Amino acid sequence: MIVDYREFYRGRKVMITGGLGFIGSNLGRQLVDLGADVLLVDSLIPDYGGNLFNIDGIADRVHVNVADIRQPSTMNYLVRDRAVIFNLAGQVSHIDSMRDPYTDLEINCRSQLTVLEACRNNNTEVKVVFAGTRQVYGRPDSLPVDEGHLVRPTDVNGVNKAAGEYYHLVYNNVFGVRACSLRLTNVYGPRQLIKHSRQGFIGWFIRLAIEDKPIQIFGDGSQLRDFVYVDDAADAFLRAGASDTCNGEVFNVGGDEPLSHRELTTLLVEVAGSGRVEYVEWPPEKKAIDIGSFYADSAKFKRTTGWSATVSVRDGLRRTIAFYRQHFDRYVDAAARPAEQV
Amino acid sequence: MIVDYREFYRGRKVMITGGLGFIGSNLGRQLVDLGADVLLVDSLIPDYGGNLFNIDGIADRVHVNVADIRQPSTMNYLVRDRAVIFNLAGQVSHIDSMRDPYTDLEINCRSQLTVLEACRNNNTEVKVVFAGTRQVYGRPDSLPVDEGHLVRPTDVNGVNKAAGEYYHLVYNNVFGVRACSLRLTNVYGPRQLIKHSRQGFIGWFIRLAIEDKPIQIFGDGSQLRDFVYVDDAADAFLRAGASDTCNGEVFNVGGDEPLSHRELTTLLVEVAGSGRVEYVEWPPEKKAIDIGSFYADSAKFKRTTGWSATVSVRDGLRRTIAFYRQHFDRYVDAAARPAEQV
Repeated sequence: MIVDYREFYRGRKVMITGGLGFIGSNLGRQLVDLGADVLLVDSLIPDYGGNLFNIDGIADRVHVNVADIRQPSTMNYLVRDRAVIFNLAGQVSHIDSMRDPYTDLEINCRSQLTVLEACRNNNTEVKVVFAGTRQVYGRPDSLPVDEGHLVRPTDVNGVNKAAGEYYHLVYNNVFGVRACSLRLTNVYGPRQLIKHSRQGFIGWFIRLAIEDKPIQIFGDGSQLRDFVYVDDAADAFLRAGASDTCNGEVFNVGGDEPLSHRELTTLLVEVAGSGRVEYVEWPPEKKAIDIGSFYADSAKFKRTTGWSATVSVRDGLRRTIAFYRQHFDRYVDAAARPAEQV
Repeated sequence: MIVDYREFYRGRKVMITGGLGFIGSNLGRQLVDLGADVLLVDSLIPDYGGNLFNIDGIADRVHVNVADIRQPSTMNYLVRDRAVIFNLAGQVSHIDSMRDPYTDLEINCRSQLTVLEACRNNNTEVKVVFAGTRQVYGRPDSLPVDEGHLVRPTDVNGVNKAAGEYYHLVYNNVFGVRACSLRLTNVYGPRQLIKHSRQGFIGWFIRLAIEDKPIQIFGDGSQLRDFVYVDDAADAFLRAGASDTCNGEVFNVGGDEPLSHRELTTLLVEVAGSGRVEYVEWPPEKKAIDIGSFYADSAKFKRTTGWSATVSVRDGLRRTIAFYRQHFDRYVDAAARPAEQV
């Protein structure tokens, strides 16, 4: 079955929540190429990751439905005839979650119950793949981190993502709504939001490099991270969606080359041929939720599905920079600029 | 400091959410005896554990404020001048949480943000002790279960209790709202709800024994549990509330004598001198969320606070049966009987 996971999607009705966002749209592009019937659901909330330009070139081969996954009756309808749901919608800013914990709860926690209740009541045949996050582990006890590590979130966003993930496992085990979760590490690549700095640092760093601006590193930049190119992340979703061996399980999905912030930014500036690195003191509110070094052990997912990361960080950065250089105005516009300062 | 933890409460302003409920009211009785200024907050939602008779004899020595912890402005006001909050309010039925996951989310998850936001914005000096549950561990990998065991809830109630607990740790670590969580196992004793069977099996078994009715055991009754008498549980809260060593930590609080359901019910029938045990097939909806045997390792809490369980199960059952025999009508009334069948 693992050999045929791409064939599995031919003519298959799938839905992607957060489908106009970063990972969702890249996944949607792969699914279109595989001949799937693709429904993209996105709330297009300003300042979140949804961007209609993300489906440029495939817009006539997907269905787009603007909707909020917090809305039960809408979800009840949309899930009806879908074979696979890639459940990627969410609020991703850690800082926002600490300023406004209720909104984060509604979007990352309660909304997952809405999706799952819709499936339980309208489509128990569906398979759901949830976009989890390494964020749930918090500060690691040891490295690399595998799935046996305690869940110990350091911010409200992490708590709500953990709860959203647990709901999926409960609905798999109790109601037979097949589900699994991929705990993604740092995903990067084309179509990531770079309007502001609150959706992952790497997209923001790439933007600064392209703009030939200083890239600020907090502290000495020695903290390690692993990185996954978005096409590799999308491939992980495809494999999980086609595999019943994954049901009821959580999997780390990370990269193979842990790099320090210092190494990453040095490489980025080199590949871009622009930008420069600047070291600054930790802002207290960020230091309070910093987790030090983190990189994941993804052996469980590799073993279960045959997945591996195929794009090196150097190559991924090169492709990403080329994409944004070509389409910069689609991702950074004058109207959005005030938000950068937030 | 551990030696003086009871003295710590003299004249101290404390609040108990769920204060008219089972553990809350027993804790309130101890605090009154210690000379604390006790505010009991309870929503008195029908079918939940709040019962005004629970403060019979101390009603003139406590402040009662009927309020729902889901209500932000109320909580903002009530937390203002409290030194310690024992945060016990919650919905405890696992079955209800699967029928109506949203209500469980509101009461066990969102409400905790409300309490913590109230503290963050109005009283950062407060100490909060959260009533967690062994339920968050799900089906154990090995026994006894200590705090290094993965959190892997088997039902929606467990997910929401886990999220509620994680919020407390985040607010401790990020906002300096000192907090810790006690993961209680099976607490029993006087003043537990016995109107229906959805608030823990042991209270229900005690009622059946008193009524000289058959006590139904699912399967062969070999699954193990540990039990904590409510006065011991209340003592655990007192110790945690007075100890800053506990801040930011989770602790198991369980009993020392794991008993099978078979052993427990045999003992219960013997102590009560009434009732009888009946073995029946597992109902599928209960089997789906059963976790097999469970008993906790409470060594971390004992080491940190000096706590230990002092009441044997035999003695605890004897005291509990005597209490309910004396006050049966206050806990089981004709109007409530239809709910028993739910």
